[in-house]
Amino acid sequence: MSAHPRLSINQATIKYATLDEALEATVAGGVEAIGLWREPVQAVGLDEAARRLADSGLRLSTYCRGGFFTMPEGPARRASIDDNRRGIEETATLAGAGAPGSTSVFVLVAGGIPEGSTDLIGARARVADALAELAPEAQAAGVTLAIEPLHPMYASDRAVVSTLKQALDLAAPFDPSVVGVTVDTFHVWWDPEVLPQLARAGNEGRIATYQVCDWKAPLPADVLLGRHYPGDGVIDFASLTEAVEATGYTGDIEVEIFNKEIWDTSFGEAIARTAAGFDAAVVPHLAASVRAAR
Amino acid sequence: MSAHPRLSINQATIKYATLDEALEATVAGGVEAIGLWREPVQAVGLDEAARRLADSGLRLSTYCRGGFFTMPEGPARRASIDDNRRGIEETATLAGAGAPGSTSVFVLVAGGIPEGSTDLIGARARVADALAELAPEAQAAGVTLAIEPLHPMYASDRAVVSTLKQALDLAAPFDPSVVGVTVDTFHVWWDPEVLPQLARAGNEGRIATYQVCDWKAPLPADVLLGRHYPGDGVIDFASLTEAVEATGYTGDIEVEIFNKEIWDTSFGEAIARTAAGFDAAVVPHLAASVRAAR
Repeated sequence: MSAHPRLSINQATIKYATLDEALEATVAGGVEAIGLWREPVQAVGLDEAARRLADSGLRLSTYCRGGFFTMPEGPARRASIDDNRRGIEETATLAGAGAPGSTSVFVLVAGGIPEGSTDLIGARARVADALAELAPEAQAAGVTLAIEPLHPMYASDRAVVSTLKQALDLAAPFDPSVVGVTVDTFHVWWDPEVLPQLARAGNEGRIATYQVCDWKAPLPADVLLGRHYPGDGVIDFASLTEAVEATGYTGDIEVEIFNKEIWDTSFGEAIARTAAGFDAAVVPHLAASVRAAR
Repeated sequence: MSAHPRLSINQATIKYATLDEALEATVAGGVEAIGLWREPVQAVGLDEAARRLADSGLRLSTYCRGGFFTMPEGPARRASIDDNRRGIEETATLAGAGAPGSTSVFVLVAGGIPEGSTDLIGARARVADALAELAPEAQAAGVTLAIEPLHPMYASDRAVVSTLKQALDLAAPFDPSVVGVTVDTFHVWWDPEVLPQLARAGNEGRIATYQVCDWKAPLPADVLLGRHYPGDGVIDFASLTEAVEATGYTGDIEVEIFNKEIWDTSFGEAIARTAAGFDAAVVPHLAASVRAAR
């Protein structure tokens, strides 16, 4: 069994898997790369996780995730910054252990408006402050911080970074090898500015990772879990994927799906259906496929 | 009992009220203006509704709503355009019957991506086509079509117009007295571009109505119903209201809340709590209050 060589399984798609189960199911599915999450890595310890990743032969496509640094200065903010520092080190270690082609990309979700506050503008400014504090450490470790704009429905409680333009503006002061962006179709598909902003991201060399999954209405009761296999919803993967490919992005493409029903299937089934959705909805729009079709 | 003179109750806030009940409860609450919805008006007939509005002494602030014209050409699209034509006429009739200061503003919600399609770009283009078709009729009737950008979480199934910038771009080809925008805090609060786009809307004379209600996480199971009284959530009414006031907008300000729990209270309580929330969260940021405080 073999999947498209650029497909990567983000571990959130098989959320209930331990690190070993995730590595094994990804290899068994013929997939070459994986995006790991911190909790399963920490469950076995970083060094052991790095050994197991190396043994798997898989590339690391991203490490998820840091961020959550919108709170005002104080002990909670210091704890968050410290945790992000550890995340940067973990990313470097794991990327070094992954197969050739692994990338040192640490995905950052900004965090929401602090409890009891209505100061969205202030919360956004503190994201910029946190990046300025973490960028030197990321640079020293050879890690790219990948700011992820999240869909605006999460702006209050999860991520005050809501559009690709905003993420690129936040990244602008830094070298693109140090601060880039995460482009996830679920979060950006609706944005009237997404195509020009993808072109801008390409010109600026900021696309650190491209993630794909689908959007379908109605949203479930927990709006975090409303993601679907590529092709099962309304997202126009043609225009988005072609725009990402036009930037020259040639990296792995992750499928990251939060969906209780998908989590309740076997890891093997989730990976097989992910690969099938990817083949049908995304692969035809990759630059190599478009060239081959001409 | 007397509410702030610029407060208007959008009838959706007391959804279960008949036209008579809505007019009566609004007057009883000391509110001077109302935003009406088509269904309760049509339930009594347009002429009778106009008489009752006139008898109430209330101003009409908006008439809700038209739009839903994203489908491709064909009978369904023709039916939608015809329905919007009737809505324009109804708006003119009702505004003529309301108290002095009534405005002929017909709110337009674009509609979602047609069933089975992923062509968001095409759906958005068809919104522009519909405006071009309806604008002459609106102009002849003295009605302003007020395109409402809806929160991006509704982009697939309800409104492909997702940002204020996009709404202003759609309005740009037309005279501002014919095509303007609806600014609803619930839909635009998260947008990193909202303040400059509000300034632009002011410069272009496009703010046809300003609506306020609050956002609070978590969203309810039906994400349409997650609106709250001003001040009960995370929206920064200071920056938004001051930006709207800075444009010179002096019209009525509607509170439009879809919320099952609020609908289940008495009309009087909903209006009293609306007025109290408005006084606390919005009034201090109106230009007159800001001037008085200096």
